[in-house]
Amino acid sequence: MNILEESQPLLAAVQQRLMAVVQPEMPANLKHPIRYFLETPSKKIRPLLTLYACQTVGGRIEDALPAATAVELFHDFTLIHDDIMDQDELRRGRPTIHVRWDASTAILVGDALIGLAFQELMLSPPNRLVEVTRIFSEALVKVCEGQGLDKAFENRSHVSLDEYLDMIHKKTAWLIQVSCHLGALIGGGNRKQIEALKTFGYHIGMGFQIQDDLLDVVADPKKLGKKVGSDFLMHKKTYLTICYDTYLETHPEWQQRLPARSSQFKHFKTFQKALADLGILESTRQVVDTYLQKGLQALETIQPLSPENPLYRLTRFLAQRDY
Amino acid sequence: MNILEESQPLLAAVQQRLMAVVQPEMPANLKHPIRYFLETPSKKIRPLLTLYACQTVGGRIEDALPAATAVELFHDFTLIHDDIMDQDELRRGRPTIHVRWDASTAILVGDALIGLAFQELMLSPPNRLVEVTRIFSEALVKVCEGQGLDKAFENRSHVSLDEYLDMIHKKTAWLIQVSCHLGALIGGGNRKQIEALKTFGYHIGMGFQIQDDLLDVVADPKKLGKKVGSDFLMHKKTYLTICYDTYLETHPEWQQRLPARSSQFKHFKTFQKALADLGILESTRQVVDTYLQKGLQALETIQPLSPENPLYRLTRFLAQRDY
Repeated sequence: MNILEESQPLLAAVQQRLMAVVQPEMPANLKHPIRYFLETPSKKIRPLLTLYACQTVGGRIEDALPAATAVELFHDFTLIHDDIMDQDELRRGRPTIHVRWDASTAILVGDALIGLAFQELMLSPPNRLVEVTRIFSEALVKVCEGQGLDKAFENRSHVSLDEYLDMIHKKTAWLIQVSCHLGALIGGGNRKQIEALKTFGYHIGMGFQIQDDLLDVVADPKKLGKKVGSDFLMHKKTYLTICYDTYLETHPEWQQRLPARSSQFKHFKTFQKALADLGILESTRQVVDTYLQKGLQALETIQPLSPENPLYRLTRFLAQRDY
Repeated sequence: MNILEESQPLLAAVQQRLMAVVQPEMPANLKHPIRYFLETPSKKIRPLLTLYACQTVGGRIEDALPAATAVELFHDFTLIHDDIMDQDELRRGRPTIHVRWDASTAILVGDALIGLAFQELMLSPPNRLVEVTRIFSEALVKVCEGQGLDKAFENRSHVSLDEYLDMIHKKTAWLIQVSCHLGALIGGGNRKQIEALKTFGYHIGMGFQIQDDLLDVVADPKKLGKKVGSDFLMHKKTYLTICYDTYLETHPEWQQRLPARSSQFKHFKTFQKALADLGILESTRQVVDTYLQKGLQALETIQPLSPENPLYRLTRFLAQRDY
């Protein structure tokens, strides 16, 4: 059994809490789209990180259920608002809320999910509750900053790799780091354990995002739940577009051979081949692997990387994911 | 001097904190619109309620500054997102963020303001910080519910007065009540004081919204900062549209005399006159007055309504406001 299958009871507990945040007395135009979004199957990597980080420091896994649910609600809010901004039409294989309903509904649903996330978080055990809430509030600002940078990069022709890494740190890795951090705090971890799990979360988060960039161009569209190549071909900056554009800048002979990178899906296979030929797919895979390895090194300072170690197993699962 | 003039030092302290939440390292596409919005003069009724509620229960007014700033940031978030949903083009006399920039920017700025509001709130003194955060989180959900109802009402031909009052309770009065509640808690108020100030805030909030509905049709457009009659003529339900529609339903002779209520500003003077002739302006004024009086009755249970009482003075100021 892989770690996700084995985590089914925990994931079911999170799912139950997610559905329970939707109060019957909520207005229908909030309740229905929230249910629609929360009932769609999702991987729930962030809640698992929270729960297992809590367990790793010797805490009771149930204590971390509210925080685990809160990070998923937070993540869902970001997806719903990002989908409006990016005009994405599919999410987890279903029409996005702004498509199925309208942009106003999607804005409001996202806002409500932030409130519900904080309410859920506040159900965590009282020890360190203030610290937990501070971390969560800071994450909200940072994730917005990351999304702001992401949007700004769309209008820029050149973005350096360092700028890109700073952006994904805020946009993606921050919440993944916070997922681990909250679990460690709620589990009563000591300073060394907390720092190790934060470092673990940061690296896993960075690797996760760059892997997402990679999957955007190589995944099976059915598994991905959205159009393959949509980030690469649209105005987004991803790890691959930056490597690709940088390569072409310094290799004018390739500029002539390849069509301009634009939103034309008919050329996508040409780009896929070029990314393979130029070694960009392979070097990206290596970068992902390096981040995940660094995450595991941090984890190893507090827990042996045995076959039973859930965060180790989760990291290995992430390394192998194809969607 | 009126209470707003006399509160200038306090308002300046809130304004300083507001501007300080904008960190220099924020991405420009967040920083500039946030500054643009926060630097626009506003009445800051909610922060004053928080500060004076704290003072009323015997607390140190400075202790309530972070919470006062947080409720203003929260309020600003709601305005920015509501303006997108309502497609309003002016706010406080200036182009709205989604007009000056774009909808994506306005969504993101609103989201960031929620995070900044929570961060600011968490700077409150540690006593009762968890309770303060719970109340703030609940308010976020309730305000979204209120906005959800408001949007739903736009598509309904008939909305009862009770439904309308429930909607404005959540959409407007909740945050005003919370502004008072937080001040009372942070000031170390006892149970009786806290309950009295919550009751005060609820009634002031209800009166405030119905007065807003009234000002929408009677205010000086220069002072209002937006087009007079825009709520009445658009699809919004307001206290006046409900009274007006209800009157016409039961008085078919008037239906023939008046043009259909629609988004035609050229007919607006006709509607203004009808609202006066039918006594709706007067009865609305009375309802506002009754709410404010009930608020003052609650306040009087914990503090005499002397000429120095700041919440009494603030209520009287609100009663006389014309924008």
